[in-house]
Amino acid sequence: VSLQNDLTEMLNLRYPIVSAPMAGVSGGELAAAVTNAGGLGLIGAGYNDANWLTQQIALCHSTRFGVGLITWKLAETPDLLTMALTYQPVAIMLSFGDPKPYIDTIKKSGAKLICQVQTVADAIYVKQLGADIIVAQGSEAGGHGASRGTFALVPAVVDSVMPIPVLAAGGVADARGFAAALALGAHGVLVGTRFYACKEALGHAQAKEYLTKSTGDETIRSTIFDSLRQLNWPRPYTARTLQNILTANWNKDPEILNQYLADPKIYQTAVEEGNYAVAAIFAGEDVDLIHEILSAKQIIDEMVKI
Amino acid sequence: VSLQNDLTEMLNLRYPIVSAPMAGVSGGELAAAVTNAGGLGLIGAGYNDANWLTQQIALCHSTRFGVGLITWKLAETPDLLTMALTYQPVAIMLSFGDPKPYIDTIKKSGAKLICQVQTVADAIYVKQLGADIIVAQGSEAGGHGASRGTFALVPAVVDSVMPIPVLAAGGVADARGFAAALALGAHGVLVGTRFYACKEALGHAQAKEYLTKSTGDETIRSTIFDSLRQLNWPRPYTARTLQNILTANWNKDPEILNQYLADPKIYQTAVEEGNYAVAAIFAGEDVDLIHEILSAKQIIDEMVKI
Repeated sequence: VSLQNDLTEMLNLRYPIVSAPMAGVSGGELAAAVTNAGGLGLIGAGYNDANWLTQQIALCHSTRFGVGLITWKLAETPDLLTMALTYQPVAIMLSFGDPKPYIDTIKKSGAKLICQVQTVADAIYVKQLGADIIVAQGSEAGGHGASRGTFALVPAVVDSVMPIPVLAAGGVADARGFAAALALGAHGVLVGTRFYACKEALGHAQAKEYLTKSTGDETIRSTIFDSLRQLNWPRPYTARTLQNILTANWNKDPEILNQYLADPKIYQTAVEEGNYAVAAIFAGEDVDLIHEILSAKQIIDEMVKI
Repeated sequence: VSLQNDLTEMLNLRYPIVSAPMAGVSGGELAAAVTNAGGLGLIGAGYNDANWLTQQIALCHSTRFGVGLITWKLAETPDLLTMALTYQPVAIMLSFGDPKPYIDTIKKSGAKLICQVQTVADAIYVKQLGADIIVAQGSEAGGHGASRGTFALVPAVVDSVMPIPVLAAGGVADARGFAAALALGAHGVLVGTRFYACKEALGHAQAKEYLTKSTGDETIRSTIFDSLRQLNWPRPYTARTLQNILTANWNKDPEILNQYLADPKIYQTAVEEGNYAVAAIFAGEDVDLIHEILSAKQIIDEMVKI
């Protein structure tokens, strides 16, 4: 199987594998490791500031990288995009919101524009705006997303935006998922959760351990953790996490939960302490397929054996 | 690509393609056409009685067929299973509920037992009960189902029940989906919606037309139509349909909707008249991929060109 196609040519990659820009997980070290293993690593700067991004880009040590941003959040911090572009990323990925205000700036910079969508309608919209690459993200994905499943969304998006390269996202964790994505007509894959349980990923060691021991049956899409973090995520986006004591009790005991809402520090402390009975572990339904914390190179080497 | 494997051997098939036992859609004519084209056709007898099933089996004209039953509903009409077995179906498929009370009867009859599940936990359970074949059904599927997406569910079920053959269901409508299912480790596919928009399927001509013109963005999982039909579907099952005027207004105008609930004949009349502003069209998220009403043979011939 040749893994060279329009996408690998456009991004100059050995393999059509891109690591998702997971907030708090995808730093410069992971991005560089993914790129060095033949894919493209994206730094997830969605909730961060320019200083953090500068530090993470420094960790790439001149290895090629891209930057992923949360579109609706970018309205609050437009300088983040301007700053990112000064470091000449290979690509900017925009997700969750209308990318229109940022298109010209990105296209003029020379960076490729990757737009992530969750519906066929949005895929057609971002094609019209001039997206260079479109990510069709299914509901299986960890973290934020929407309701349509990867399996039927990917070929429908491919048909709707042809000949623009499409990356399949949501559920891709091993060689089987990679092969299936290509069979569905995708040019490549955007991989999140599998790169969370990865040596080079940021994030708490215990959270990574949980990922290796959980099943997709135990994940849930909700807005609980956005409420607790006081993040104004717009509809229709919800976030997939592992279930924990907090999600199990969310609808049962308003008393305790009002305490969390009244004092955001309680949740913040749980996150800092790695108390995952309370703190969210963002994870996709493909956690069933993750049994070990591996290096980015090990993950990619296994994935391309199709 | 060889399409022969443990599943085709067990069921004596040319292709590992099984048509889903869709209530009101999958009659004897469709089942026979699917079998004659190289797959296995299942008659969907979930809501029907013995007389209906006898008539549909007669329409198979000695072509091999299977029968699909709704497990929780079977408790109300256990004779349906006994009667079905007298016609020596190749397989009985049980979905939605605990199959335990019916296992012995089916296994003793010589029919293969196909159990459809929506979680890894249920897959492990039906393996322990002795299922011969397991269907891993993702949320993309039309009609009843649950929340996990096909893409990550299938390989997780395969890993959990090996070496039992697994059929992927939910989102499979063309050669790409068939190839992707095999890449994910499935032995074959269970195909619903694509066989609804099929010449040999039962069901209103206008409903089939709608399927060829809709997008998966417009489908929705709900319990609305079960309420209207006074069917006591247990949790966690919901049904995926095309959205229509009724689903759009369900949460907005309790007044009108209480009328429907108070007088079931209003909804029943809409179904009989093919008034799809009100009546449900059960459909999967893969309707994007369905553009024409085809024969079962055309559908299968296209699907196996992988």
